[in-house]
Amino acid sequence: MPGRGFLADLEERAAAVLDEPVLRYFRQGARDSVSTDEAPAAWAARRLLPRVLRDVSVVDPSVTLLGHRVPGPLGIAPTTLQRAAHPDGEVATARAAAAAGAPMVLSSNAGATFAEVAETGVHWWLQIYLGPDRTAAVPLLRRAREAGARAVVLTVDTPVVGTKYDPGPAVWEVADPGWLRVNHGGDPEPGPGGDKATDLGPHDIDWLRKETGLPVVVKGVLRADEARRCVDAGAAAVWVSNHGGRQLDRVAATADCLAAVADEVGDHAEVYVDGGIRSGLDVATALACGARGVFLGRPVLYALAVAGEAGVAELLRDLSEELVETMRLLGCSRIESVRADLLAPGSHRSTVR
Amino acid sequence: MPGRGFLADLEERAAAVLDEPVLRYFRQGARDSVSTDEAPAAWAARRLLPRVLRDVSVVDPSVTLLGHRVPGPLGIAPTTLQRAAHPDGEVATARAAAAAGAPMVLSSNAGATFAEVAETGVHWWLQIYLGPDRTAAVPLLRRAREAGARAVVLTVDTPVVGTKYDPGPAVWEVADPGWLRVNHGGDPEPGPGGDKATDLGPHDIDWLRKETGLPVVVKGVLRADEARRCVDAGAAAVWVSNHGGRQLDRVAATADCLAAVADEVGDHAEVYVDGGIRSGLDVATALACGARGVFLGRPVLYALAVAGEAGVAELLRDLSEELVETMRLLGCSRIESVRADLLAPGSHRSTVR
Amino acid sequence: MPGRGFLADLEERAAAVLDEPVLRYFRQGARDSVSTDEAPAAWAARRLLPRVLRDVSVVDPSVTLLGHRVPGPLGIAPTTLQRAAHPDGEVATARAAAAAGAPMVLSSNAGATFAEVAETGVHWWLQIYLGPDRTAAVPLLRRAREAGARAVVLTVDTPVVGTKYDPGPAVWEVADPGWLRVNHGGDPEPGPGGDKATDLGPHDIDWLRKETGLPVVVKGVLRADEARRCVDAGAAAVWVSNHGGRQLDRVAATADCLAAVADEVGDHAEVYVDGGIRSGLDVATALACGARGVFLGRPVLYALAVAGEAGVAELLRDLSEELVETMRLLGCSRIESVRADLLAPGSHRSTVR
Amino acid sequence: MPGRGFLADLEERAAAVLDEPVLRYFRQGARDSVSTDEAPAAWAARRLLPRVLRDVSVVDPSVTLLGHRVPGPLGIAPTTLQRAAHPDGEVATARAAAAAGAPMVLSSNAGATFAEVAETGVHWWLQIYLGPDRTAAVPLLRRAREAGARAVVLTVDTPVVGTKYDPGPAVWEVADPGWLRVNHGGDPEPGPGGDKATDLGPHDIDWLRKETGLPVVVKGVLRADEARRCVDAGAAAVWVSNHGGRQLDRVAATADCLAAVADEVGDHAEVYVDGGIRSGLDVATALACGARGVFLGRPVLYALAVAGEAGVAELLRDLSEELVETMRLLGCSRIESVRADLLAPGSHRSTVR
Repeated sequence: MPGRGFLADLEERAAAVLDEPVLRYFRQGARDSVSTDEAPAAWAARRLLPRVLRDVSVVDPSVTLLGHRVPGPLGIAPTTLQRAAHPDGEVATARAAAAAGAPMVLSSNAGATFAEVAETGVHWWLQIYLGPDRTAAVPLLRRAREAGARAVVLTVDTPVVGTKYDPGPAVWEVADPGWLRVNHGGDPEPGPGGDKATDLGPHDIDWLRKETGLPVVVKGVLRADEARRCVDAGAAAVWVSNHGGRQLDRVAATADCLAAVADEVGDHAEVYVDGGIRSGLDVATALACGARGVFLGRPVLYALAVAGEAGVAELLRDLSEELVETMRLLGCSRIESVRADLLAPGSHRSTVR
Repeated sequence: MPGRGFLADLEERAAAVLDEPVLRYFRQGARDSVSTDEAPAAWAARRLLPRVLRDVSVVDPSVTLLGHRVPGPLGIAPTTLQRAAHPDGEVATARAAAAAGAPMVLSSNAGATFAEVAETGVHWWLQIYLGPDRTAAVPLLRRAREAGARAVVLTVDTPVVGTKYDPGPAVWEVADPGWLRVNHGGDPEPGPGGDKATDLGPHDIDWLRKETGLPVVVKGVLRADEARRCVDAGAAAVWVSNHGGRQLDRVAATADCLAAVADEVGDHAEVYVDGGIRSGLDVATALACGARGVFLGRPVLYALAVAGEAGVAELLRDLSEELVETMRLLGCSRIESVRADLLAPGSHRSTVR
Repeated sequence: MPGRGFLADLEERAAAVLDEPVLRYFRQGARDSVSTDEAPAAWAARRLLPRVLRDVSVVDPSVTLLGHRVPGPLGIAPTTLQRAAHPDGEVATARAAAAAGAPMVLSSNAGATFAEVAETGVHWWLQIYLGPDRTAAVPLLRRAREAGARAVVLTVDTPVVGTKYDPGPAVWEVADPGWLRVNHGGDPEPGPGGDKATDLGPHDIDWLRKETGLPVVVKGVLRADEARRCVDAGAAAVWVSNHGGRQLDRVAATADCLAAVADEVGDHAEVYVDGGIRSGLDVATALACGARGVFLGRPVLYALAVAGEAGVAELLRDLSEELVETMRLLGCSRIESVRADLLAPGSHRSTVR
Repeated sequence: MPGRGFLADLEERAAAVLDEPVLRYFRQGARDSVSTDEAPAAWAARRLLPRVLRDVSVVDPSVTLLGHRVPGPLGIAPTTLQRAAHPDGEVATARAAAAAGAPMVLSSNAGATFAEVAETGVHWWLQIYLGPDRTAAVPLLRRAREAGARAVVLTVDTPVVGTKYDPGPAVWEVADPGWLRVNHGGDPEPGPGGDKATDLGPHDIDWLRKETGLPVVVKGVLRADEARRCVDAGAAAVWVSNHGGRQLDRVAATADCLAAVADEVGDHAEVYVDGGIRSGLDVATALACGARGVFLGRPVLYALAVAGEAGVAELLRDLSEELVETMRLLGCSRIESVRADLLAPGSHRSTVR
C-alpha cells in the first residue's frame, strides 16, 4: 500500500535544503500573503460526487493543448530562479517534462538558454512580459521561435511588481543576474520591474500573434469578462492565474474564478489554471471546474530542490497516477468526462470567509 | 439518569484493546482521510425542529426493509476483518443482530461461513464485488442464497481500491488470508484489489437480480442521477455510501447527499445510508433526510472489539433507545413521520467549508 | 462610566457559591449539550442596523402581556429548584419581579406555595405539565387561580424527560422532594418524569382554557406550523423555547426559530421567547425577531445564587437599562418600533455550522 | 523591496508610547467591543477580481469631495484627544493633512482652536453634535465658518453615549477639560454626554445647512433607507460609520453596509465611510463598495502617538501609495473605475458568523 510518496511534506523537505533567501523568495506572496496561503484550501474545500457504474477499465488522461496531444493535463508553469533551486535548473525541469510528455512554459527570465531547453526535446512555450517598447521583445520572441517554442504566454497581471512585506530579497538579489538575462542577448538589464508595460491592451495579443505566428496564451486572467476580451482579441487560450498570489493580495483564489471563465470562453478557447495545485485530487477538481491544462509552479521548484530532474519526474508521475485513480473513482474514463456535475454544490466557500 | 452508556468513548475503548495494525486498518480513510473524518460532523451539524402536541404514547420505530419487517431502521453494514476485532467475529455480530432483529449485511470477505452466520437466525444479505468475469461470482452467490441470504448488496464504488496514506497495513496484511476466502470455496486468492471489475454497468444489476432471484441493493451511490439509473436498471434499493471515506477522499458526506437521492428515487425504491452514524440523533436525522435503513460500519467493529456479541447488542440497543426517545421528542410515533420538515433549513453546511 | 456590572461573569460567580450538584443540574443540557451551549451565540451573531434621526427623548419599553401592562418585555421563566439556588427561593424571585413589575412564571414544581408567591404582589402565571389523567391537574389549577395566577403556561416539549449525559443528578436527587410538591396538596409524588402525558394535543389547550378561564400560553414551540396549530386551538400566546436545551439535543436555537413563528402567528397571538438571553442587546434582538415577551431562566437562578432577591432585582434592572439604551441607539422609542428591519440580513448563521 | 513600512504594527508601537488610560480610551468599543474588533476583518474578507489589459500608465487617485478636488479619497475622521496622543495634537494632524492635500474633519471637541488648524492651510470641515437647544451651536458654527470650515459633519449616532465595559476612563477623565472646550467660547462644560440632542430629525439637516450656508455631511448612517431620508432632507453627503464601534455593540460593520447605502443614494449625494480601514487594499475595497471618501480614525491617533506630524504624513503617504499600486493591479486608472465588479461575489461573509 503506497504512502503519500514523493509529495509528502514536499515543501518542508525543500525548505530543509534550500538557501533561506531563496526559500523565502519562492514562498513569498504579495503583502500579507493571504491569497498565496489560501490557494490550496480553495481546491481542497470542494467536495466530489462520483459517478458509478461506468466503464473505467481504460482511463485516458490525455488531452490536446493547442493542438498538441499530451499524456495528461499537467504542465510546468513559468517560474524563475530554477537554478537557485537546483544547479541543473530549467534543464532538469525540461528533461523531466520531456520524459513525461508534459509541456513546459519557460520563463523569459529563465537561467537556461532556449537551446539548452529545446535540446531536451520538451514541448515548450515561452512566457513573456511586454515592456513599454513592444519591439524590444522581438529578438527574444524570434530566438524562442527559432529554438522551437510552440506558443507565447503573455503575462498580463504585472503592470508593476506587487509589493512584498516579507523581509526576504527580491529576485535580482537572490539570482545571479546573468541567469535572468541568458536569453535576452545583449538587451540591457531591466532593473526591478522597470521593463513592464503599464499600458498593455487587447491589441497586444493580436500583435504578438502576428509577430510570432504562434498561438498566444494570456496568463493572469480571473474574470469571465476579461477572458472574453482576450479571446475576442485573438487569444488561443486563457490562463486563470493570480501569479501565485505574488501580485495583488486578497485577490480571489483561482479555484474560485475558474468555472466562470471556463463557462464564458471554454467553447472558443482553451482554459488553463495554476495556483495551489498540490495533489491529483486538485487536478481533477480543476478539470471539473473547466480547466483543460493544469500548471504547477512552486511544487516544481520544491521538487527540483529536493531531487533535481528526478524530483520533477516523480512529482509529475505521482500527480498523474493520482489523477488516473481519481478519474477512475469518479467514473470518468476520459478528461472530457470530468465536468462540473462532479462537484458538490455549495462546497466552494472555503476561502470566502 | 443514564450517562452516555456504552457509546461513550467507544472508539477510544476499542483502540485500547485492538492490535495497532488492526486499529489503523479500521480507522483509515483514503489519502488525507478528509471524508472519513468529517462524516459524523455532517450529521451533527443539522438542527432539528420538533413537532409538538402529537400523540407519542406509543412510538413504533419498526420498518420494512425489502418487504421484511424489522424492529427498527438499524442494520449492520458489511465490514471485513471482524475476527480481527474479536475472536467470535461475524458470528458474534450475527447473534447480536439476530437478537435485536436487525438485518446484517455480510461482507463477501467475511471470516465466518454462510452456514455459521445463518445458524444464528439473523436476517442477512450478502455484500459482493463483481470481478472482470462476472460468472466467477456465481458459486458464491449460489452458496449464499442456499444459506438463506435474502438480498444481494452490490458495491459499486470500488473499481480500484482507493489509496491510503496511512502507513498502516492493507487488509491482506492484517487478516488471516483464510478468513477472507472462507466463503469462496476453491476460488483463487484475488490479491490486492485485483479481482474488481472496472467495467460495471447498470446491466450488472439486472444480471445479478436474474442470477440470484434476490432483490439487489446498489451500495456506493451519492448522486440522484446515478440512483435513478440504478433503479431504472432494477435495483430494489440504493445505498448512499462513500465506503466510509476509504475509496475517494474529499468525496461528499453521505449526510449531504442523502436527501437528493431520496427525493429522486424514494418513491420507487428503498434508500439506505451509512457513514458517520454515531448516535440515535444521527439515525433520526438520516431518517429525516430520507433514509429507510441506516447502517453501521466502524461502530460495530469497535463494539465487537470491546465486548464481542454483548457489545454489538448494547450498541444496537442504545442507538435504538435513543432513536425512540428522539422520535418522541420530535413528535413522531412512526418512522414514516420522520421527514424533512424536522430539519432546520440551512443547518447542513458544516462539512462544506 | 459603568462596567458590565452585575451581569459580569454572573454564571461564574454563581458557580463559586452553588453546591456542585445543584450547579451541574442548572447547567446541564440534553446529551451533548450542543443546543444549550449554542443558545447565547445565536443571539450574539446577529448584527444590528440602527435607525437614526428619530426622536428618542423618551424611550418607553413597556408592553402589554396578555392585556396586562408591564414596564418592559422581560419576564421570569419557570425554573425549579430556586430554593437550591438560594434559601429564599421563589419568594425572593417574586419579590424582585414584583418590584420591577416583571411577570413571573411559577414552575408547578416550585418550592414556595402559591400563597407565598402571591403575597409579594407579583403578577404571576402558572407553568404546568399535564399528565395522562388531565383531571389530576384540576386541583392545582384551581388553587393557582384562587391564589391569583393570571395565565396558565402549558409546557408541550416534554412528553418524556430528555436524557442527560452529564454525570450530575436529576432534580429529584438534588431537591428536597417536598419543595417540588408544595403546591400539589396531597397529590402523590410523580417520580422521574412519570407524570407527563405523552398524548397531549391541541384539544388540551382548549380544555385548559375552559377549565381555568385563564389565557393559555403554549411553551416549547419552535415551528411556524405548530404555532399556528396552537393558536387555532385557542392559545393566547406561543412561547418559543427549547427548554434551555434540556430536552432534545441539536434542537434549533430559539433565536433561529423565533422570526418564522412570529411571522406566522404574531398578528393573532402573543409570541414569547427564552433561551440564551444574557444581555439587553439580546433582548432587543429578540424583540426585533418578533418576540413580545422575553423570559429569563438560568440567569435568574444564578442571580438568586449570588445575591438572592437583590440579585434578581439587579439582573432585571441591568437588562432593562441596557434595553433602553439599545432602543435609543437603535432609534426606537417604543417596543413596537423594534422590528426585523433592524437586523442585518444574513447575520444569523452562527449556530448553523 | 519595501516592507510593510510605517503601518507595520502601528497600533502596537503606539501602545508602547501612549499613557495607558489614553490607549484604553482610544481602543475601547461599546460593551463587548464586538463591532470595534471585527471592523478590519470585514474589509479583509473581501476578495478582488482585477481587470487586466487596461492602460494604467497613469493612475490618478484624485477625487472631488463636495466640489473640492483632493489628491485622493483619504481623509481624517474626527477624533478627540489628539493632544493626548501627541503634544502637537490636531495641529500636527492638520499640517500632515495639509501637506498631503487630505481633508481633515475637526472634532468639535478638538484641543486646538479653529484658527490654529486653519493656519496650517488644511482643507477642513467641522464635526458637530447638536444639543437639545440647537441654537447653542450657532456661535460655534459661526466661528468655524469664519475660520474657514468648508462643511459641517453632523454626527447622528449619539443620542446617548454608548456604554463601555472597559474599565478605562471616559474622555472627560483623560483629557484636559480645556482641550474639549477650546472652540466653544464661554459655553458651559457639557458634562458626560449631557449635551446631546435625543430628538434629532431630518429637519436638523436642513436647519444646519441654512444656518451655516455650508454643505452638511450626515455621519453615522448604516442603512439605505436612512441615507435616503438624509439626502431628501438636504444632506450633501452621507457618511457610513458606526462610530468605531463605540456606540452600539453588535452593530453591523461599515464594510457590510456601505454598498447598500451607495446603491441607494450614490447618484444624488456623496458617500463616505470609516471604520477598520488599515491598508490601501481596504481603501480600494471601500471605493469598490461605493465610497467616494474614506476616512481614518484610530490610525491617525496611533500615527500621531508614534511620530506626530511626521507619523500622520507617513500614514497618509503609505496608504496612498498602496492605493495607487492596488488600483494599477486592479486595472483602474481613475477612482471612478473602482467599482463593485472588482469584488468577488460572496466574499463578504466574514463578520457575519
